[in-house]
Amino acid sequence: MKESKYLNDLIEALTILPGVGKKSAQRMAYILLRMSKDKTINLANKLSKIITDVSSCNICGIYLDNEDAILQKNSDKHLCIGAGRDESKICVTESPADIYIIENSTDYNGDYFSLTGNLSPLDGRGPSEIGIIRLEERLKKNNISELILATSTTVEGEATAHYIQQLASKHNIKVSRIAFGIPLNGELGYLDSDTISHAFNERKEL
Amino acid sequence: MKESKYLNDLIEALTILPGVGKKSAQRMAYILLRMSKDKTINLANKLSKIITDVSSCNICGIYLDNEDAILQKNSDKHLCIGAGRDESKICVTESPADIYIIENSTDYNGDYFSLTGNLSPLDGRGPSEIGIIRLEERLKKNNISELILATSTTVEGEATAHYIQQLASKHNIKVSRIAFGIPLNGELGYLDSDTISHAFNERKEL
Repeated sequence: MKESKYLNDLIEALTILPGVGKKSAQRMAYILLRMSKDKTINLANKLSKIITDVSSCNICGIYLDNEDAILQKNSDKHLCIGAGRDESKICVTESPADIYIIENSTDYNGDYFSLTGNLSPLDGRGPSEIGIIRLEERLKKNNISELILATSTTVEGEATAHYIQQLASKHNIKVSRIAFGIPLNGELGYLDSDTISHAFNERKEL
Repeated sequence: MKESKYLNDLIEALTILPGVGKKSAQRMAYILLRMSKDKTINLANKLSKIITDVSSCNICGIYLDNEDAILQKNSDKHLCIGAGRDESKICVTESPADIYIIENSTDYNGDYFSLTGNLSPLDGRGPSEIGIIRLEERLKKNNISELILATSTTVEGEATAHYIQQLASKHNIKVSRIAFGIPLNGELGYLDSDTISHAFNERKEL
């Protein structure tokens, strides 16, 4: 049976998306072919656009359009956060996406810093690869009062938090870690034993 | 908090993919940004390519690269299926994807015809919209001995099968429908009552 090479190429290419295997990619490709051409062309253009026109803020690491990133480079102020924020506090996350999650869920009024992942020496990710050197420069230069560590509870996330804590103590900066425990509205029966055991050991007196 | 417009554009564009909502699209976009640029550019190119370089076979309706579709247009033979196949049998499916599924799962040795969906007058899809007129031309022209209906068991799929059956009987062509019932290796406890009731009523004497 004949097949379309270009269609198979697309199916192959779609599998780079997270959670998309061969079957889902096939389904996506067939649906794209039946969809209006404009939508597919639009998707192709937007994909190219993030490669050419998106870069990172050189201060906090969130993704910015090139023009904003250049403005930021030529500015003394941190433009990503609005005026009137407490720049003496820095919340450290393991990815730019986490910054938006914290920004949208809390009333935190400080500044941010995104690492590019967690420490993982076996994978060749040391302090300089994940941006800790840049963080240290920021600690030296600015007048920082508190560092809030929001990396995850994986082994790598904890190691990263520990490393940054050591670093901050050298500079006499207060360090805090976001709280881990039972999620609000969570039921004990549905939680893993690690979380329950942690919550139990870290109980607070009322 | 500043955001990247181009990144948000991509997130919006990704939601045209089936099963991809806002959250999954965000996850995809962030992962694409951290991935090697080549892979994203490749995906963008492959998407453009299916718009410009893929069309349909004018006989069976499967997707073909343009050069193959042109070859097919200038040929009397049906090039999609290999030589030595029984061209007097036609299996009718509701989409090109279903042709490959049947081809890969069965030892069927006949020809195919893909409709572009099922009849659904309320959505403006009548016999000419879904390709039944083209099917009828093929029934008139070629010497067809059997039509195998492989549309689904939805109301629209059944209506389409019924319509084609009427059409074929006008041309004195034998029509068969693929069998519906309990899936092989399926457990009764996990099946819907419609399937079980159908399988029970259509029981075969041994």
